[in-house]
Amino acid sequence: MGLNTFGHILRVTTFGESHGPAIGCVIDGCPPGLQIAPEEFRHDLERRATGRSRHTSARREADEVEILSGVYEGKTTGTPIALLIRNTDQRSKDYANIAQQFRPGHADYSYWQKYGIRDPRGGGRSSARETTMRVAAGVIAKKWLAQRHGVTVRGYLAQLGGITPRPPFDGAPDWSAVEDNPFFWPCAGQVPELETYMDALRKSGDSIGARVQVIADGVPPGWGEPIYGKLDGELAAALMSINAVKGVEIGDGFAAVTQKGTEHRDLMTPQGFLSNHAGGILGGIATGQPVTASIVLKPTSSLRLPGQTVDVAGEPVEVVTTGRHDPCVGIRATPIAEAMVALVLMDQALRHRAQCGDVGEVLPRIPGAASSGNADD
Amino acid sequence: MGLNTFGHILRVTTFGESHGPAIGCVIDGCPPGLQIAPEEFRHDLERRATGRSRHTSARREADEVEILSGVYEGKTTGTPIALLIRNTDQRSKDYANIAQQFRPGHADYSYWQKYGIRDPRGGGRSSARETTMRVAAGVIAKKWLAQRHGVTVRGYLAQLGGITPRPPFDGAPDWSAVEDNPFFWPCAGQVPELETYMDALRKSGDSIGARVQVIADGVPPGWGEPIYGKLDGELAAALMSINAVKGVEIGDGFAAVTQKGTEHRDLMTPQGFLSNHAGGILGGIATGQPVTASIVLKPTSSLRLPGQTVDVAGEPVEVVTTGRHDPCVGIRATPIAEAMVALVLMDQALRHRAQCGDVGEVLPRIPGAASSGNADD
Amino acid sequence: MGLNTFGHILRVTTFGESHGPAIGCVIDGCPPGLQIAPEEFRHDLERRATGRSRHTSARREADEVEILSGVYEGKTTGTPIALLIRNTDQRSKDYANIAQQFRPGHADYSYWQKYGIRDPRGGGRSSARETTMRVAAGVIAKKWLAQRHGVTVRGYLAQLGGITPRPPFDGAPDWSAVEDNPFFWPCAGQVPELETYMDALRKSGDSIGARVQVIADGVPPGWGEPIYGKLDGELAAALMSINAVKGVEIGDGFAAVTQKGTEHRDLMTPQGFLSNHAGGILGGIATGQPVTASIVLKPTSSLRLPGQTVDVAGEPVEVVTTGRHDPCVGIRATPIAEAMVALVLMDQALRHRAQCGDVGEVLPRIPGAASSGNADD
Amino acid sequence: MGLNTFGHILRVTTFGESHGPAIGCVIDGCPPGLQIAPEEFRHDLERRATGRSRHTSARREADEVEILSGVYEGKTTGTPIALLIRNTDQRSKDYANIAQQFRPGHADYSYWQKYGIRDPRGGGRSSARETTMRVAAGVIAKKWLAQRHGVTVRGYLAQLGGITPRPPFDGAPDWSAVEDNPFFWPCAGQVPELETYMDALRKSGDSIGARVQVIADGVPPGWGEPIYGKLDGELAAALMSINAVKGVEIGDGFAAVTQKGTEHRDLMTPQGFLSNHAGGILGGIATGQPVTASIVLKPTSSLRLPGQTVDVAGEPVEVVTTGRHDPCVGIRATPIAEAMVALVLMDQALRHRAQCGDVGEVLPRIPGAASSGNADD
Repeated sequence: MGLNTFGHILRVTTFGESHGPAIGCVIDGCPPGLQIAPEEFRHDLERRATGRSRHTSARREADEVEILSGVYEGKTTGTPIALLIRNTDQRSKDYANIAQQFRPGHADYSYWQKYGIRDPRGGGRSSARETTMRVAAGVIAKKWLAQRHGVTVRGYLAQLGGITPRPPFDGAPDWSAVEDNPFFWPCAGQVPELETYMDALRKSGDSIGARVQVIADGVPPGWGEPIYGKLDGELAAALMSINAVKGVEIGDGFAAVTQKGTEHRDLMTPQGFLSNHAGGILGGIATGQPVTASIVLKPTSSLRLPGQTVDVAGEPVEVVTTGRHDPCVGIRATPIAEAMVALVLMDQALRHRAQCGDVGEVLPRIPGAASSGNADD
Repeated sequence: MGLNTFGHILRVTTFGESHGPAIGCVIDGCPPGLQIAPEEFRHDLERRATGRSRHTSARREADEVEILSGVYEGKTTGTPIALLIRNTDQRSKDYANIAQQFRPGHADYSYWQKYGIRDPRGGGRSSARETTMRVAAGVIAKKWLAQRHGVTVRGYLAQLGGITPRPPFDGAPDWSAVEDNPFFWPCAGQVPELETYMDALRKSGDSIGARVQVIADGVPPGWGEPIYGKLDGELAAALMSINAVKGVEIGDGFAAVTQKGTEHRDLMTPQGFLSNHAGGILGGIATGQPVTASIVLKPTSSLRLPGQTVDVAGEPVEVVTTGRHDPCVGIRATPIAEAMVALVLMDQALRHRAQCGDVGEVLPRIPGAASSGNADD
Repeated sequence: MGLNTFGHILRVTTFGESHGPAIGCVIDGCPPGLQIAPEEFRHDLERRATGRSRHTSARREADEVEILSGVYEGKTTGTPIALLIRNTDQRSKDYANIAQQFRPGHADYSYWQKYGIRDPRGGGRSSARETTMRVAAGVIAKKWLAQRHGVTVRGYLAQLGGITPRPPFDGAPDWSAVEDNPFFWPCAGQVPELETYMDALRKSGDSIGARVQVIADGVPPGWGEPIYGKLDGELAAALMSINAVKGVEIGDGFAAVTQKGTEHRDLMTPQGFLSNHAGGILGGIATGQPVTASIVLKPTSSLRLPGQTVDVAGEPVEVVTTGRHDPCVGIRATPIAEAMVALVLMDQALRHRAQCGDVGEVLPRIPGAASSGNADD
Repeated sequence: MGLNTFGHILRVTTFGESHGPAIGCVIDGCPPGLQIAPEEFRHDLERRATGRSRHTSARREADEVEILSGVYEGKTTGTPIALLIRNTDQRSKDYANIAQQFRPGHADYSYWQKYGIRDPRGGGRSSARETTMRVAAGVIAKKWLAQRHGVTVRGYLAQLGGITPRPPFDGAPDWSAVEDNPFFWPCAGQVPELETYMDALRKSGDSIGARVQVIADGVPPGWGEPIYGKLDGELAAALMSINAVKGVEIGDGFAAVTQKGTEHRDLMTPQGFLSNHAGGILGGIATGQPVTASIVLKPTSSLRLPGQTVDVAGEPVEVVTTGRHDPCVGIRATPIAEAMVALVLMDQALRHRAQCGDVGEVLPRIPGAASSGNADD
C-alpha cells in the first residue's frame, strides 16, 4: 500500500507531525490473543529516543504510549490496535528563522513542491519523529515473531563515518555489548573512540553518515513471495522508507559486484549451508539462514554551518539551522531498522500461512548457518 | 500489492514460466489515448533478449508480442492491456539432470520450501524469463513518460566485476555509445577489454557480478509520496525485485556513510542545484533533479563448475549445471532496470495527479542540475 | 482494502471500541489546501448521535473531535488527518448479564467464533459506535465534493416498518423538511404518526426495520471504474458495511425484476435523460444523472423481550438485553449512509483524475434528469 | 483492489473485450497442490455460455480454456495461473449501425464519457463476455472450497419477470432439477410456462428482468472480517459488479424493512439455529449457517424496439439494436453469481487463516440450520 499505510495482512498506518499535538498509529490484522501491555513499548522507544546521550538531539519526549483500542484484558482482540503518544517537548519557535528558507538536502523543499503548503515546525510529517510509531508497532511484531516462531530481529551500528568495528569482531555481534553503549556498537573497546569523534563533530557543527546492520535469526524457509512481493524487495522498501536512508543491501550486497559465482554461492550440505552470502534469501524467499540487511544513513542536513539556498520567494540566501538535531541520525536508526524488518517478516509470515498453510514442513530442510550472534542467543 | 502484481494506479500483473507455453502481462490503469503498436515493444525486448551476443545465454526467443486487449485502432482505451509472448525455444531436457538437485545460490531450494512443489524446467517462475514482460510493460511507461512529461529513463552497465568505466567518462554517459555495444557500456574504447574478459570467464565456467546505473531525466518536483510510498522506497522495492539484485542505492548511496553533512547536502541557488548527491529525491519526493539509482547483480548460480549441495532426498551430491546460462546476468539487466524505474515513475505520476492535481506549479522551482547525459539529449 | 481501511486513493482507517477509551480515524490521501475546522464535524455527528430524541438510544456522547494531524493553520496539508473522539458515557456494567450469553441476531457470536476472544462491553468493535468516525470522515468528503465539484450527498428515511411517505411526496424530497424532524422523514405531516408508532414500539420492547434512500446530485459523468471497481459495486460494499444493513439497491433496484427493457431504459435526448431508472450509473460508471441508492436496515437484535439462545458453555438460556438501545437503528443510519456514499465518490473522483485527467470534457454530455430535490437546491 | 483485479490474497485479474482476439484472466495466490485440468472448466463455462438454448443469445463460442501458467503436472504450483480463451464467433459488423449512437441504458455512453474513446464492437470491455473469465476463475475457487472445507456454492433463478417458483418449492431447491433445464429453475413443472413466456418476449423484441439466488452451504463460522472487509460487504461488491445487477440482498434482505426484531433474529439452541433470516452472516462474519444472497438483473438495453437517444455528435436519433442479444440476461447469470460468491469465500478463507490460523475451533459451535438443499446434498 502507499502513503502512510504499510503491509498487506499486518497493516500499520501512522500519523502525526513532529510538532503537532500527538503522533500515533493503527496496527490492523494482528492475530488475537497476543499479550501486550503499555509498558512493553518502553524499552524500544527508549532505545530510539533522543536525549538519551549527548550524542543525539536534546529533545526529550516522554513517549508514553496509550493503547486506545484492540486490546482487552491485556490481550489483542484481532481488531485494530491504536497507539497514541502526545508530543510534549516541541519548540516550534526554533524554526521561526527557517520558516521562509529551504534547508539544502532537506525534505522541506520537495514537500513544498508536492503539496504547495508548508508546515515548518520541526519538519512536520517528514521529521524522524514519525519513526517513533514504527518502533512502537515493531514491538508487537517482534513479540509475535519471537513467541510464535522463535525469530529474533536485532541490529547494530556497523560503521560511523570512517570508523568500523575492529577485531575480534567478526560479524557475529555480542548482542549484550551492543545494548551496553549509546551507539549500538558491537565492540565495547571502541566506544571511547566514538565518543571523542562525536564530541568533535558536534562542536564543528557538521554531521556524518553511518551504516546499520540488521540480522533476523530463526526465519523459517518459505517466508516471502515471488516477483513483486519478494522478501528482499519488501525489506528494501521498508528500510529505504526510513528517513535519511540512501541504500539497502541484502547479504553481501554491493560486494557481489566483484564476486565470482563460485565465491558467492552458498554451498549446501545435509549439516547446513557453508556460508551466507545470500543473506538468507533466494528468489525472494527465505532459505532458513539468518536474514541480513545493511543500510546507509546520510548525514543530516540540519546544520549550524551556513549553506547556500533559496527562500520561498526564490531569492538566494544563506541558511543556518539552529534547534536540536542529531549530528549522526544513523545512531538512533538501529531500533527503527529492526522494527521495519520485524514488521515485514510478520506480514510475510501471515501471508505465507494464508496461501501455503497446508504445505507443512518440506524435507530436506537444511539447517541455517552458524548463529549470527552468541552470548544471549 | 504483493506477489505478481505491481503498482497502485498503474498496475502490472505478470504470469508465466520459463519453459511453459507462454509468458504475459496485464497492464491496468493506463490512461486512454496513448498510441501503441506491437512493433514498439521490439527494441527494448531485443535489448533484453538472450542470444544477442556470445556474452549472454544462447537461448533465442522471437519474443513476438501479441496485444490481446486494451488497444483499439492503435490507441489504448483505458481498459486492461494484455500482452502475450509464446515461448518457442525451451529445452526442458537440459534440466533433467538437476531436477532432483538444488543449485547452491538458486531459488529452486526456497521455492521448494515454500510451495512443496517443484517446476524444474528452466527455473520455472523464478527464471529471468519473467522479466521479459516487465520490459514490455516498461515500454508503455517509457512512452507515456516521454510524451506526457518529457521524462527519459536510461541505464548503463557501470561495473563488470572489477572493471569500471575509464576517463574521459565522468558519470554523464554518452547514451548513443551505450546503445552501440552489447554490454551497455558507456566507454566505447573499453569494449574489447570487456569482450576478452567475458570470453575467458565463459571458458572457465564461472560467472561474475555487475553494477547497473539508471538515470531518469526530467522528473518534475513533487512526484513521490511520504512515509511508505516514498519514491525511493518504491524504486528500491522495484529494483530489488529484479532477479539477482542484492542491493540498491539512490544518489550517492553507500558512499554517504563517510560523507559529512556539508559535503552531502546539495546547495541550492536560483540558477539550480550545485550538485546531486541526493539522486533527485528528498523525503521520498522528487526535487526536480535527475533521479539516479544503482543496483548490484550477483553472479549467477547456474555454473558448469561443480558445487556441494543436497538432493530432494536430503542426500549430499555434487551439482553441475549445463544448459544455456548467462555468465553475467548484469549485462542484460539494464533494460529491465529501466523498465522498473519507468513503471514506478508513471505510477507515482498518476498518484500525484490524483491527490495533488490542483496544486499546480509551485514557485520557486529550482532548475535541475546539469543534464545527466549529452549527445542525444 | 480489507478490514478497517476503506478506499484506494482516499483511504479511511477507523479504530476503537464502543466502551474503550476512544474511537478515531486516519484519513489519508486528502488533497492539500482544504479548509477544515473541528467545529465543522459537529453538525453531522449530531445528526448521527444517540440521545437526540426519545426515539434513539439514551447514550449521550459529547463527540468532540480532536484533530491530531494533517491540518496546519486550518488547512489540510496532504498528510494523514487523524481524528480522535474520547468515549465518555460508557456503562459497561449494563452488559454484565449478557457477557456469558450470545444475543440471537447479534455479532457477538460470530466475533467469538472468529477471534476466540470476546469484548462484551457494548458490542466492542461491532457496535454502531464505530460509525461515528465514518460520519466524521464523511464530513471532509462532503465538503471537498461540494467545493471542488458541486456535488451534494443527502439522504432520508424512506420507510419505517410498514410506513411509507405519503403524497404529495413524489420521490423528490424537500431537504429542509428532512432536516426538521428526528426521523429524517421527507413528509412533515406524517411525523406525529411516526412518533406514535415509535412510542408504542419502544414500550413493547421490540424493534423494527427501515429503509434509507441516499441521493448524490451533481456527480459528473465518468466517475467510476469498470469491472471490479465499479461505482455501484463500491457503493454496495460501502453501504453493506454499515451495521445492520442487509440489502442495497441502485436506481430502481429490485423493482427491475419485473420491468421490461423498454420500461427500464432511460431514453436520452439532447435536452437530457427522460428518466433515471439506472440510478445514475451504467456499466459501473456515472452517467451525469443523480446517483441514487437505497438500503435496508434490519431491526436491532438487542431486545428486552426474551429469546432462546446459548451461553459460552453451549448451554441453552433465555437472553434479555437491557441497556440503552435503538428500537430502530435505521433512523440514525441516514448520515452514516451519506458519509459512505460521499467517501466512495471522493475516492472515485481522485482515481478518475489519476487515470483520465487528460480526457477532459467529452461531448455530447447529456444534462442530468430533473433535480432530485427542490427548495434548497 | 480496484479496476480489473479482485480479491486480496486470492486475486483475479481479467482482461479482454467482447470482440477482441481473446479474453483471459490471471489467478494469483491460489494454494499449491490443487489438481486442475483444462476440461474441468467446461461444465461451468457451458452453463454460462450463450447459444445453449433458443432463450439466450445466438453467439456460439467454443470457450476452450488454455492454461498458460501456474499448473505443473496437473497441479497448481502456487504461482499465477493464467487462463486464455480465444474469441471465435465475433460479428463486429453487427455493430456498424450503432457505432455512432448510444443505446439508452447501455454502458457505451458512460464509457465514452470516462475514456473519450469508444470500442463499439459488441460492447467492448463492458460486455458480459468478460464474465466468462469470472466463471473460469470460480471453477478453481469452487473446487478448493469443496475439497478443503466441504463448502458448496450453488444458485438458481428465483424469479423471471413476474413468474416465481410455485409450491411445492419451499426455498430449498432440488439442485438436480435446477441443472436439468436451461433456466436454472427450481421447479421442473414450470419450465413449459417459462418457455412460452420467453418465446413471446423474444418475438416482441423486448427484454425482462430477473432474480437469482445463491446459497453457500458448509461455510464455517468465523470467515469474514469486520468493518470494511465484511463478508456481506464483499459479497455485495462482487455481485453488484456483475453486468446488469442493480441490487443485492443478504438473507431476508429488503423484507427486513417491515420485520420486527423478534421476528428477524435467529434463535439459537444447542441443536442449531431455528431460522436463517440473517443469511448466515452477522457483523460481517459467517455464523456457520448457509450463506444466502439474492440479486436482481435488469432487463438488457440492447433491444430491437426503437428508442430515443443521441449520437456521438449530440444529435437526437432513434436507435434499434440488431445483433445477437439475450432477452433475459438473468438466466445466464446463475453460474456467474456462483463464481463471484465462491471467489469471495475462498479469499476470505485464506485471509481468515492468515490472521486467525491459531484460533482453532471455538466452542460452542452451533450447528447450521437445516440444509438448504436436498437430493444430491
